Amino acid sequence: MPQGRDFGGYTDGPTEKCGVVGISLDDRNAARPLYYSLYALQHRGQESAGIVTHDGFQQHSHVEMGLVGDAFSENDLDSLNGATGIGHVRYPTAGSVNSCCAQPFSVSFKSGSLGLSHNGNLVNADEIREELENLGHAFTSDGDTEVIAHDIARNLLDEDLIRAVKRTMERIHGSYSLAIMHDDVVIGVRDPQGNRPLCIGELEDGYVLASESAVIDTLDGELIRDVRPGELVVLERGGAGYDSYQLVQEENTAHCFFEHVYFARPDSIIDEKLVYEVRRELGRQLWEESGVESDVVMPVPDSGRAFASGYADAANETTATGEPREEDDTGVEFAEGLMKNRYVGRTFIMPTQDERERAVRLKLNPIKSTIEGKTVTIIDDSIVRGTTSMQLVSLLKDAGAEEVHMRIGAPPIIAPCYMGIDMATRDELIAANKSVAEICETIEADSLAYLSIDAVASALERSRADLCLGCVTGEYPYDIDGETTDRDVSRPDIGTQEPVTADD
Amino acid sequence: MPQGRDFGGYTDGPTEKCGVVGISLDDRNAARPLYYSLYALQHRGQESAGIVTHDGFQQHSHVEMGLVGDAFSENDLDSLNGATGIGHVRYPTAGSVNSCCAQPFSVSFKSGSLGLSHNGNLVNADEIREELENLGHAFTSDGDTEVIAHDIARNLLDEDLIRAVKRTMERIHGSYSLAIMHDDVVIGVRDPQGNRPLCIGELEDGYVLASESAVIDTLDGELIRDVRPGELVVLERGGAGYDSYQLVQEENTAHCFFEHVYFARPDSIIDEKLVYEVRRELGRQLWEESGVESDVVMPVPDSGRAFASGYADAANETTATGEPREEDDTGVEFAEGLMKNRYVGRTFIMPTQDERERAVRLKLNPIKSTIEGKTVTIIDDSIVRGTTSMQLVSLLKDAGAEEVHMRIGAPPIIAPCYMGIDMATRDELIAANKSVAEICETIEADSLAYLSIDAVASALERSRADLCLGCVTGEYPYDIDGETTDRDVSRPDIGTQEPVTADD
Amino acid sequence: MPQGRDFGGYTDGPTEKCGVVGISLDDRNAARPLYYSLYALQHRGQESAGIVTHDGFQQHSHVEMGLVGDAFSENDLDSLNGATGIGHVRYPTAGSVNSCCAQPFSVSFKSGSLGLSHNGNLVNADEIREELENLGHAFTSDGDTEVIAHDIARNLLDEDLIRAVKRTMERIHGSYSLAIMHDDVVIGVRDPQGNRPLCIGELEDGYVLASESAVIDTLDGELIRDVRPGELVVLERGGAGYDSYQLVQEENTAHCFFEHVYFARPDSIIDEKLVYEVRRELGRQLWEESGVESDVVMPVPDSGRAFASGYADAANETTATGEPREEDDTGVEFAEGLMKNRYVGRTFIMPTQDERERAVRLKLNPIKSTIEGKTVTIIDDSIVRGTTSMQLVSLLKDAGAEEVHMRIGAPPIIAPCYMGIDMATRDELIAANKSVAEICETIEADSLAYLSIDAVASALERSRADLCLGCVTGEYPYDIDGETTDRDVSRPDIGTQEPVTADD
Amino acid sequence: MPQGRDFGGYTDGPTEKCGVVGISLDDRNAARPLYYSLYALQHRGQESAGIVTHDGFQQHSHVEMGLVGDAFSENDLDSLNGATGIGHVRYPTAGSVNSCCAQPFSVSFKSGSLGLSHNGNLVNADEIREELENLGHAFTSDGDTEVIAHDIARNLLDEDLIRAVKRTMERIHGSYSLAIMHDDVVIGVRDPQGNRPLCIGELEDGYVLASESAVIDTLDGELIRDVRPGELVVLERGGAGYDSYQLVQEENTAHCFFEHVYFARPDSIIDEKLVYEVRRELGRQLWEESGVESDVVMPVPDSGRAFASGYADAANETTATGEPREEDDTGVEFAEGLMKNRYVGRTFIMPTQDERERAVRLKLNPIKSTIEGKTVTIIDDSIVRGTTSMQLVSLLKDAGAEEVHMRIGAPPIIAPCYMGIDMATRDELIAANKSVAEICETIEADSLAYLSIDAVASALERSRADLCLGCVTGEYPYDIDGETTDRDVSRPDIGTQEPVTADD
Repeated sequence: MPQGRDFGGYTDGPTEKCGVVGISLDDRNAARPLYYSLYALQHRGQESAGIVTHDGFQQHSHVEMGLVGDAFSENDLDSLNGATGIGHVRYPTAGSVNSCCAQPFSVSFKSGSLGLSHNGNLVNADEIREELENLGHAFTSDGDTEVIAHDIARNLLDEDLIRAVKRTMERIHGSYSLAIMHDDVVIGVRDPQGNRPLCIGELEDGYVLASESAVIDTLDGELIRDVRPGELVVLERGGAGYDSYQLVQEENTAHCFFEHVYFARPDSIIDEKLVYEVRRELGRQLWEESGVESDVVMPVPDSGRAFASGYADAANETTATGEPREEDDTGVEFAEGLMKNRYVGRTFIMPTQDERERAVRLKLNPIKSTIEGKTVTIIDDSIVRGTTSMQLVSLLKDAGAEEVHMRIGAPPIIAPCYMGIDMATRDELIAANKSVAEICETIEADSLAYLSIDAVASALERSRADLCLGCVTGEYPYDIDGETTDRDVSRPDIGTQEPVTADD
Repeated sequence: MPQGRDFGGYTDGPTEKCGVVGISLDDRNAARPLYYSLYALQHRGQESAGIVTHDGFQQHSHVEMGLVGDAFSENDLDSLNGATGIGHVRYPTAGSVNSCCAQPFSVSFKSGSLGLSHNGNLVNADEIREELENLGHAFTSDGDTEVIAHDIARNLLDEDLIRAVKRTMERIHGSYSLAIMHDDVVIGVRDPQGNRPLCIGELEDGYVLASESAVIDTLDGELIRDVRPGELVVLERGGAGYDSYQLVQEENTAHCFFEHVYFARPDSIIDEKLVYEVRRELGRQLWEESGVESDVVMPVPDSGRAFASGYADAANETTATGEPREEDDTGVEFAEGLMKNRYVGRTFIMPTQDERERAVRLKLNPIKSTIEGKTVTIIDDSIVRGTTSMQLVSLLKDAGAEEVHMRIGAPPIIAPCYMGIDMATRDELIAANKSVAEICETIEADSLAYLSIDAVASALERSRADLCLGCVTGEYPYDIDGETTDRDVSRPDIGTQEPVTADD
Repeated sequence: MPQGRDFGGYTDGPTEKCGVVGISLDDRNAARPLYYSLYALQHRGQESAGIVTHDGFQQHSHVEMGLVGDAFSENDLDSLNGATGIGHVRYPTAGSVNSCCAQPFSVSFKSGSLGLSHNGNLVNADEIREELENLGHAFTSDGDTEVIAHDIARNLLDEDLIRAVKRTMERIHGSYSLAIMHDDVVIGVRDPQGNRPLCIGELEDGYVLASESAVIDTLDGELIRDVRPGELVVLERGGAGYDSYQLVQEENTAHCFFEHVYFARPDSIIDEKLVYEVRRELGRQLWEESGVESDVVMPVPDSGRAFASGYADAANETTATGEPREEDDTGVEFAEGLMKNRYVGRTFIMPTQDERERAVRLKLNPIKSTIEGKTVTIIDDSIVRGTTSMQLVSLLKDAGAEEVHMRIGAPPIIAPCYMGIDMATRDELIAANKSVAEICETIEADSLAYLSIDAVASALERSRADLCLGCVTGEYPYDIDGETTDRDVSRPDIGTQEPVTADD
Repeated sequence: MPQGRDFGGYTDGPTEKCGVVGISLDDRNAARPLYYSLYALQHRGQESAGIVTHDGFQQHSHVEMGLVGDAFSENDLDSLNGATGIGHVRYPTAGSVNSCCAQPFSVSFKSGSLGLSHNGNLVNADEIREELENLGHAFTSDGDTEVIAHDIARNLLDEDLIRAVKRTMERIHGSYSLAIMHDDVVIGVRDPQGNRPLCIGELEDGYVLASESAVIDTLDGELIRDVRPGELVVLERGGAGYDSYQLVQEENTAHCFFEHVYFARPDSIIDEKLVYEVRRELGRQLWEESGVESDVVMPVPDSGRAFASGYADAANETTATGEPREEDDTGVEFAEGLMKNRYVGRTFIMPTQDERERAVRLKLNPIKSTIEGKTVTIIDDSIVRGTTSMQLVSLLKDAGAEEVHMRIGAPPIIAPCYMGIDMATRDELIAANKSVAEICETIEADSLAYLSIDAVASALERSRADLCLGCVTGEYPYDIDGETTDRDVSRPDIGTQEPVTADD
């Protein structure tokens, strides 16, 4: 889970926004199942949490800043009546760390009430907002979600719900997984290219739509399947069943591969792939592409654990040159050489400049005996700014590592994400500005290799044309000002099979 | 100030919603003056506090639940850039104790941004909301303020600001004093009957609009005048001046007399009358109408203090029968016989049923020596449910009072307020259900008298036709479902000159 | 009540430390009555609040920083079992704003448990502490209270409780009113000179000891009498009665006159005098000593109210020169010309230097109509640093006062208090460094007069020899390093009958 | 780290109290290094955190309830002056969840000030307390620490510090690791049997004493060695060096083996053994003693991870019957089959009875693909009440596991700990009341095995006579009322090499 990185303000990973959930039950109040669902999605957003329910007569809403555990009291849950409801957790993004943008967003309009939970990012929200403003609409926030809500509300003036949403889907461009509640009917919508995940599950007494299947597990339900790109799913009142409408069909999907590499929980199944297994497979391919013989392989906890496990397994089957291990070749040792202090959190008082260097070991402490005098390979899922990687290498060298090789279970991030992920800016992205060799030199590793894009496609069993690879190619599935959309271009330096060593 | 009654959950007074303020300065940031203004208006609303400013380019907003002192940090104020801004404090009203309704309400729309602070209550908000919903508008709250904002925004599609507001004023009915900010222009609007107060003042470096003139004093400015009923006032950018537009003109005003009796600060001047002096005058008239000779006159602190001071002054000039005092007639003694504990507040743990009776003296403790063996007249501004009055009488009797006479500086409250004040429901209003004689018996006073409506009109130097007397007559200046609008009807029992004694 | 001065950090009054209470009941838990008692004593200390009870088997304790309302939850009260208990509120004093010094202080020792609540200040605590340290005692705080507790505990090794306390009383010097709980027996002790107040009251089902009689009123009990200087009172178990032991007898008392002038609640009876009446009488004498004819007399709210009321009464009987008023002489008008904003409290964000002058009116707003073009006399209870007085005069002049005369209902404070009151240091005390004429000039009043010490003695019906007048004479009832103890010395300038005018 | 178990109130592990640290530096303030040290020890106590420093002239103290991150603000740290200091984190134990017992405990006495941080538990504290009470001492808490402080203070009346501590050590019995500060001298003491850990490290500019060596790593220092049982270590002023005094010498040590199994951080070195390696070795021995062939081996996160890794390594070398694996025998797969939700914490709202069963998966979610249709071995470090184990087995069976075998990396806990660990009571300990076969049946596992005591001794390379095994044998290294001290007795059922299967 991504919270693994969230230590002491030194965060050095891309951050994702939002998790959504919608539930329709037979008789039970939906508030508590929604509350537990938000806990299951907490890794997707820690800025705010909200639940909106409908009891057949009226909406009930509770949205607050902060973690799920802080946002809801028992009284709050008790006041959220109704067997249907939607929920949301939100990630802090620059500019609007403000209660006005917390979700679910709810409005009342001519034909009832509407609640929206949104994960993703529209690329033409401003355009549609302007059109709506020309018709007299006034907006309380600058978020995409309100634009979608207003557009649906307007369409509902002369259409039924399905057609109204369809018309809105034809207007909006970008990535979106939505849990929508119109009065007491919950629907789920996934954008035509399926950029953000959304799945549907069956509970004992109803149905659930959620960003990740771990929600369904948490509620002791059964995953039915992913919502299809361009599909609208309606949960029947009373939790009796669901209906599917394939509203839009596109030739290619644009699934975000980074969900599998970084964002999603290891125990979630996304687009038919278990995240944990994908990460193990990426680790195996990483060994095959750029394995380096070393005394010990260790993960960066917790983000690199699954990758390192697959990498070590593969390393114990074949040598770095692909030969089967001899019987007396003990292969590579897999060990936890870095211990993480989970208590270092938001309230941590930063060390003074003078003490900063010392305090790195507060968060991650190397186990000397595992490292001293050894060659070490360290596995992580990504490098964003490079700061953490540099500290890690230095930490290991100080602990006596002879050599430190770094292997990354994904291609270099060379461009920003416009599809709903709050990565660093292009200026901050180390791989947007340096070659792999230069990065290796910067972080002072003995060698560095990323995974190739092809390996990612292969592990996900998708063609490159069906993935959104914008952040690792700079080519996006949608028109974005100043960016290219030609997804066939490839940069020579990216995802090379050959690891780069420091002395290159 | 009304907070005087806010003790320990035993609150027994009508409560008012909202105070508004708008400021336009030359060069200084408006945030701090607005912050101090909200402190000056805190008695008008303790539920939430908010400030919205505009720096010429964009709006800045900070709205939070709670008291002004808790809602803003120094950082919050620093982030509210811009020389123009509006502010709001809100009173808790049933149903929507929720951050969604905190104000100022702000929206962006086709031609810019709009911020609204509202004090009052519309009687046809639902109607207008419906019309707007039919045009596709979606609302985030069930408040009047959002309706006004959407209507103005819609009118601004094809009108300038003045005309847009005028058109909205022609549509909305009810009471409203508004501070509106369109981009960086602040305007103030008062409803055509002037139900809620609003005044304009000049500062060293700009202009201010506020619910009460105490705001202007606080900012060391000069009160210019009340905003006129139906008038729109525009504060020029840069605080250079103001323009006036008399948009609507009605024959009669409907000033709320209760502002003077109860809500407003004693040091505010409302509709050209200093509240403190009005209360003293009402006290004088109370003596003239229903004075009773007694050993001592004491106020209920703090609400009855000004009334009691006027009553005692008058009592020392003439006898209860209106004769001048003889030289050796020492008249009536004015004393503070009830001491109030200001620490009893929100966090107070209520006594058990068993201890409740005892704990009344925690809030108000009688000074025995002032009371024992004496006939006592106690002065308050109003009786709502009657519970507090009953406790007071019992307290004084227990302290040894021979007789306890209660005099109220206003007529009996017999009907709810629909103009923005959150009084008790009709069922809870003791005077809606009992005659003065019955009330006297219920609270176990030796005599009880209210002030006549004519005395109120006389003290305010207005005809009854120019006052909103709905809560004391049941007749309202606007059509309200199930209520009469004929303001000439009078109930025989109300505001009688003759005090009613317990043995009647 | 002294909280009247506690506005916005501009506090400019002496501050007192601590209120104590002890209760023994028949069958009821003492926790809630103690809780309400602490509310009644809150004006004596806002830093911390605590209750310790005993249920016959063991002690229960809850002590926290903050106001009573914040320090206790309903659960806290429920867990404080037992029909006997003591309580304490503490005032913040320099140096130890720390939970370690919050009271009641409780210890267990050879023969049981001991709880102590202390109001006052020892002058030889260090000496006794040293003696105890020589015997091996270790202390957790630098407070007097722990010293007393250890000394009693040591005496209890070979004495019964009464004798043990007696022996301690013979050793400690200074001011103290103590509520002590030894196991489930509550005793009260007042120092031999009766410096701090302590009284005893009867409840329906038990007895109570408290710093002020308002506590007894709050619990609906009857004041029996003050605890006598040097007396020890034992509350019998089960609330059945109380026993008295006159352990120490001294020729003179040293009652703190400032309790009556400033600290105590107006509705408390201290040493047989109702505080409210004493203040009114001081006001009357102030008129007689230094009355000045003016159009209007107004109190500084809330501290000057009772003084001003007595002053105005006297002024309406005789002229400033002592002649009876002529029949057509309307005398002096008493009015509330300064309105206080009770919301300005701890969380208030201070105005910038630039705005400071303006923001004075946020706390106290003059009512112009009462002041403009008039000669004004303003009444307060004391001047400590002079800052507030200076602001007040300036406020009134700005509001149009022709003349501003200031009258103070107590003599000038020229020296620190060593008996438990945290006044300003001698350097900060304006009257320690300036003559009355100089003070008058500094605060820019048209005239200024204090009350004479003799008037204080007369109002309290005590000889000067029976009062502690240290802060107004510089002579103390106890040996204090660097201070004189000769209580007969008098400074010529103090408490002059003749007011000093600005042009003197 | 033990926090691994701290989920959602379902905690089912023994809990340990307290971590201690003491620091003496050259010139730098000790407060920040102490603060980071407490973060490194946070897993040893989350109830309260405190730091006491000495600047050469006086002590500074800040002790608060709550986590380190909540207990200290930047201002707090800045106010803690001085180059020497001690710190403490405390674990909640029944009865005194109260600020009075938070540490470091500090007192002042005849010859200066004393601060104490204590980890452990005395068995004769009551006795010594009574002796001190007979000498007149009064205690503010019922904790051991205050007893030690008073005893040392008393001894210091006529001894120097070393002799005073020695004399106290001769009187107190039980387990203790102490960081003591006498004025500005820090000393560390470990009980004569070395029950609780304490080590000494060198920093760039001083020396540090701490419960665990991870503290030293965090401060970028070098571990020198463990403090020896019965040794007193004095840190010289100015951080120049340290002196050692072997005050007491006993034949046998009584190191707590549970520190290695459960409490300590994996990256700490305790009594010369790296905790992580000990756990891996215990895992290896667990395979050898009671390995069972299964498709997959998975740890209970995070507590079982190191054990499972050793177990799986051993399993891939030999078969369950001890034979070397054939070349084509793929052995056992090690996988993370249970995903832990780290967000479920203190503020979590417990599911209703009805939902409880469902909500288990909120905390631990099984990855179906790793489990379905497979035989699973699950590894944990201990079973206390058995509740969690039962839930885990059920979770895995529901996820489709064919068989679930549970292996525990320690012997059964059959008796309480009297040496400072807050395990469950004997009644609650499942192994105190049931045989292994019965436990296996209760938790519905297919087989269950614990590790033998001999394996523990072997992994720690200590004889059983040098370990405290009280909780797994019921025989204690000290006289405890109602418990046996004969450490040679052995129960037949404990730590059997033969796993017990459900159908036994």
